[in-house]
Parts: sequence; structure tokens; C-alpha cells
Amino acid sequence: MQLLIDGVCKTDALLASESRVLKFLRCVPNNIGMTAISDPKVQRYRGANPMDWGLSGFVLIAESHISVHTFPDRNHINIDVFSCKEFNVEKVVEYAVRLFSIDVVTTNVLERGLEYIDGE
Amino acid sequence: MQLLIDGVCKTDALLASESRVLKFLRCVPNNIGMTAISDPKVQRYRGANPMDWGLSGFVLIAESHISVHTFPDRNHINIDVFSCKEFNVEKVVEYAVRLFSIDVVTTNVLERGLEYIDGE
Repeated sequence: MQLLIDGVCKTDALLASESRVLKFLRCVPNNIGMTAISDPKVQRYRGANPMDWGLSGFVLIAESHISVHTFPDRNHINIDVFSCKEFNVEKVVEYAVRLFSIDVVTTNVLERGLEYIDGE
Repeated sequence: MQLLIDGVCKTDALLASESRVLKFLRCVPNNIGMTAISDPKVQRYRGANPMDWGLSGFVLIAESHISVHTFPDRNHINIDVFSCKEFNVEKVVEYAVRLFSIDVVTTNVLERGLEYIDGE
């Protein structure tokens, strides 16, 4: 299954924090029983428009991944948690809301991955 | 926008090819006018079930990413292309179908990212 979280945040400071994004990428796999197979990686980028800067982070988890993209000057964050198995969606959303101080959160859950392959 | 491709493939050989996954991660950003901000990374994993092995690949692209997860013994592939701007979905799907010899393809396009933030 794949959980997509789109958030509007109260403050831009947390969205500009590399350590905060790293913490999310490190803690979520443990919290929902997934095993990271790569070190979390976070990079800063700057777009053509000066407002379009932020952090992009990801970690590989067996046949799945977690990604985070932040836009501090726009107070926005996009998170994907893609896993081969079911996980506690509420737990991940609550953790994201708390860690990044998300004020307005939109979530989508897609049925996708090994557990939805025909015959399995 | 985010393009999600789920495919059933004719052959498992292409899904087990690290060079093929790397080629996809290297070529797609150039083909749709995106700029990679990290080197593509591909890792092999092995799940608890012996059939659950495959490749996971990722490349960061400004505030977005491309990911590929393959399952050779299940003839399945999952691809995400997440970009801050509109791109040619058909071009990416056609390329994926050709490169991995996808027989049955399911695509989803989600309105997500900077271009959908209110007021932009």
C-alpha cells in the first residue's frame, strides 16, 4: 500500500530542518515494522523561482520507499510511504503531523504493491 | 503531478537488470525536462519470502523524485514519477513499457505538487 500525505504547515522552520527530515526517514521504518535497506539521504535544492527551494529526502525499504519533499517558503510538505505490506496509516500520519507541525493534512491511501498482486 | 505505473512484464530478466533500472532513472529526467539532483541509486533486496526479491531504485529531481521497484519472480514492476511541473505522461509510460517489456500496464496520475498549491 502507498500512503500519500500532503500538508500545509504552521511554520517554515521545521520544513527547512535537515535533521527533522532525517529523523522522519529513520524513525518511520522502525515504527511500522519495515526494514531500511539504505541510509536515509536528504538533499537541499533550489528551483528557478527563488521560492521553490527546500529539502528532498528518501530511504529505501526492501521493495518500497519513503520520500519527503519540503517547500519552506510555501509551507508545504509531500510525503510518500510505500510498503509491500499493510501498515498503521494513522500512526504515520500522526507522527508526520507532530514532527512537522502540519496544520492542514490531506491523505490518500493507494492499494498497490505485493499484497495486491493477483493470486497472492 | 505524480505518475504511478504498475506493470506486469513478459519476462523477468529485464526486472532483474540493475543496468536497465539505472538507465530508466538516468534517461527519464532528461527526456521530460527535469534535473536530477542526486545520482541514481539501485539496490537489490531479498524479502522473508524467497519470491520477494528484486531491485529498488531512486533518483531525486529538484523537489521531486523517480522510484522503481521490481519483483522478477512475480513479473511485476512499480514506478513513480513525481514532478513539480507537468510532464509528458505518455512519453514516460511508453518508455517504461518498452524498456521493461511491460505487457499489462496500469497508470494513475495524481494532481500533487507545487503547481496545485492554492494561489499559485
